[in-house]
Amino acid sequence: MLNFDFISPTKFVFGKDVELQVGQITEKYGKKVLIHFGGSSAKKSGLLDKVEKCLTEEGLEYIELGGVQPNPRDTLVYKGIEICKKEGVDVILAVGGGSVIDSAKAIAIGALYDGDFWDFYSGKIPEKRLALGVVLTLPATGSEGSFGSVVTRERDMLKRDCCCDLLRPDFAIMNPELTYTLPPYQTACGICDIMAHVIERYMTNTTGVDITSYLAEAILNTVITSGYTLLNDPYDYDARANIMWAGMLAHNNLVGVGREQDWSSHQLEHELSGLYDVAHGAGLSVVLPAFMKYQYKHNISLFARLAVNVFGVKMDFEHPEKTALQGIEAMEAYFKLLGLPTTFKELGAKEEDIEALVNKCAFNNGDLLGYLHPLTRKEACEVLRLACK
Amino acid sequence: MLNFDFISPTKFVFGKDVELQVGQITEKYGKKVLIHFGGSSAKKSGLLDKVEKCLTEEGLEYIELGGVQPNPRDTLVYKGIEICKKEGVDVILAVGGGSVIDSAKAIAIGALYDGDFWDFYSGKIPEKRLALGVVLTLPATGSEGSFGSVVTRERDMLKRDCCCDLLRPDFAIMNPELTYTLPPYQTACGICDIMAHVIERYMTNTTGVDITSYLAEAILNTVITSGYTLLNDPYDYDARANIMWAGMLAHNNLVGVGREQDWSSHQLEHELSGLYDVAHGAGLSVVLPAFMKYQYKHNISLFARLAVNVFGVKMDFEHPEKTALQGIEAMEAYFKLLGLPTTFKELGAKEEDIEALVNKCAFNNGDLLGYLHPLTRKEACEVLRLACK
Repeated sequence: MLNFDFISPTKFVFGKDVELQVGQITEKYGKKVLIHFGGSSAKKSGLLDKVEKCLTEEGLEYIELGGVQPNPRDTLVYKGIEICKKEGVDVILAVGGGSVIDSAKAIAIGALYDGDFWDFYSGKIPEKRLALGVVLTLPATGSEGSFGSVVTRERDMLKRDCCCDLLRPDFAIMNPELTYTLPPYQTACGICDIMAHVIERYMTNTTGVDITSYLAEAILNTVITSGYTLLNDPYDYDARANIMWAGMLAHNNLVGVGREQDWSSHQLEHELSGLYDVAHGAGLSVVLPAFMKYQYKHNISLFARLAVNVFGVKMDFEHPEKTALQGIEAMEAYFKLLGLPTTFKELGAKEEDIEALVNKCAFNNGDLLGYLHPLTRKEACEVLRLACK
Repeated sequence: MLNFDFISPTKFVFGKDVELQVGQITEKYGKKVLIHFGGSSAKKSGLLDKVEKCLTEEGLEYIELGGVQPNPRDTLVYKGIEICKKEGVDVILAVGGGSVIDSAKAIAIGALYDGDFWDFYSGKIPEKRLALGVVLTLPATGSEGSFGSVVTRERDMLKRDCCCDLLRPDFAIMNPELTYTLPPYQTACGICDIMAHVIERYMTNTTGVDITSYLAEAILNTVITSGYTLLNDPYDYDARANIMWAGMLAHNNLVGVGREQDWSSHQLEHELSGLYDVAHGAGLSVVLPAFMKYQYKHNISLFARLAVNVFGVKMDFEHPEKTALQGIEAMEAYFKLLGLPTTFKELGAKEEDIEALVNKCAFNNGDLLGYLHPLTRKEACEVLRLACK
C-alpha cells in the first residue's frame, strides 16, 4: 500500500425530499447565491422553482445562470465569473449533474482570482474559492464529492481538468427521486461513468491494497445490481438511491487511496467526447472494454479477480487468463444490455480519426499514457482500433 | 434505504513515517498543544519524543498529560480541562489508541464549556471544541474518524458516550508501522472491535441498502484476511495498513448510513468491561456471537448473506437457517484462532452478575434494547447466558 492523504469534507444530505432543506443549508454560507443549471429540464421539472422558493424563504437573494451544456464550456464559466465579481455573489449553487457542477467549480475558483481561470485548467493550483453547494439531479461523474472539474475550451474543443481538494463542494443535496425521470440512456451513461471511475482505480500494479480492492468491488456490485433493477422499473427508489450514493463514493477517491491508478480510458475518452460531443458515459463504454482487452495479459490475476468478484465468472484455475477475458466480455455484455454503444461505429466515431485523437491526448508519464502497462502513442492507437471491430 | 446526513471532514494522513509531519499539520490549528497519551509505551517506544521534536521544530509549545487508562476515566478528563483553561491550550493532540482519543475528545469539548463536561455524556449536545488531532497507535475503536467518545465515571464505573459530528477530529496521522509491536492479544481485540462496528451496522431490518451491505462486507473481508496474515507475521506492513484504514472506515459510519443499526452488543459489552475492566474487544468477542445466535432466526436471509459473503460458508438453499448459524460459528472460530475469549468463563465474568449487568444497561428503545429484534431485559439476560455455555 502506498502512502496517501485523504480528505472528503463535503456535507451530504441524502434522501427523499431533502432538496427542501436547500434554503437552511445554503444560508450558512452566505446571502447572495448564483444558481447554476443546464437546459430547460430543471425549470420544466419544477425543481428550480422549488429551490428558489426555499432560498427566498430563508431571506437569500439569487441570480440565475442556466445554459450549461454537456462537456461544459469555458465561455459560460467566464460569464459566471463576471456575474459573481460584479454582483458580490457568496455561494454558487449547482442544480444539475456533473457538467453543471464542474462549471460551478470553475466559476467558484475563477471568481476569487484576478487572472484567467483557465490557468487552473493548465496546471496552476487554486488557493481559494467561493462557497459551493450542489443539488444533484444525475448520478454519474461524482463531482458532488470529488476533487475534480473538467471544462472544454470552446475555440478548439480542448478538454482539460483541474484537480485539488479545494474543489470538493461544501455540501451536496441528493434526492434519488429527482432521477426517476432520467431517460434510460442517460441513466445507463451514468452507470458506465461510475463503473469506469471504480475500475480505473482498480487497475493497479500496487499490491497489498485489499481494502480499496474490496471497497471497489462493493461499489461495482451495487451499481450493476441496481442497473438491472432499473431496466424493469425506473421508479425503484432503492435502486436509484444505491446508484446515487455509489456514484459519489466511486469518485471521492475512497476506492483509490493507497494505490497507483490508471486513468488512460478517461483520458482517451475525453478526446473522443471532445471531438464528437458524445455523452461521456457512452464514450467510456466504447473505450474501457477495448483498453481492458489490451491490458489484461499484463496482470491476469487482477483481471481474474475482477471477473470473479464482480462479474460472476467462475475461476478457471488452470487458465486464469480465460477467466480474466470472460470478465471483460461480461462487462461489455452488461453495457450492451443497458443500451450503451461498445464500438466506434455505434458511437458515430471514425477509425480514421484515431491518430489525431491520440495525438491530441496529454501523455503525462514521459510520452506514455497510464501506469498499468504504460502505452506508447502507437499502442494507444491499437487500443482504440480494438473498439472498431 | 433511509434518509441520512453524512459528514466526515477529518484530514487523514496515512502511511510510513507520516508522524514526522505532525508539526507542520498541528501548526495550522494553533500554537499551544496539550499532548495526551496513555501509559509508558508512548515514551518507551520513542514516539512521544519524536512528536515533541516535530512540534518544537515548528515553534509550538506543548504540555504533556499522560496516564489515560483503558476505559478512560472522567477524573483525568477533569484534569485535562483544567490545564487547557489555565494554560490557554489551542490544540489537543491525542497520541495513542481509542481510550486516549476518547479522553481527548472529552477534554476538547469540556475546555470550552462552563458547566460539567459530564453533561455531554448525559445527553447534552456540545456546540464547540478546541482543535483536535490524533497520532494513532492502535487500530480498533475508529475514534480517529468517528463522531463518538466513551468515558467511564470512576466513582460508579458508569460508562457513557457522547455522539455528534463535532467530535470528529480535525486530523488523524496514521502510520501502520507504529502497530508492529502491539501484543498479539491487543491486535486481536482491535480486530474484534472493528468487526463488531461493522456487524452491528450490518444487522438491520432496513431493506434496499445494498451499497452499505457490500461496503460492510468489504471491510470485514479485509480485516479477517489481514488478521490471518498477522498471526504468522506481525511485521507485515500491508496487513497492518489494511487493518488500520479499515478500522477508521468501520466506524466513521460509511457502512451505516441509510440503515437502522443495532448496537445492543456494544451496549451490553460496555457494562461488562465497565464492571470487570476487561479489554473492550475481548468483551465483544464474548457478547457478539451470543447476541447473533439469539437473533439470527429473526432475519435468516441477512445472517445467511453474512455467512456466505464474509465467512465463506456455502449457501444451503434448502436450509438457509443452517447457513446463517454456520456463519456465526465460523466467526466464533476465527475469534478463538486469534486467541480471544468467547465465553464468560474465559473472560473472567460471572453468570450470577448477568441480571445486575443488564439492569445497569440503558435500554433506549422504550424499555427494550436494540432494533433487529428488540430485547426485553429478560431476553438480554438470555443472550448473555448463551455466552456462559
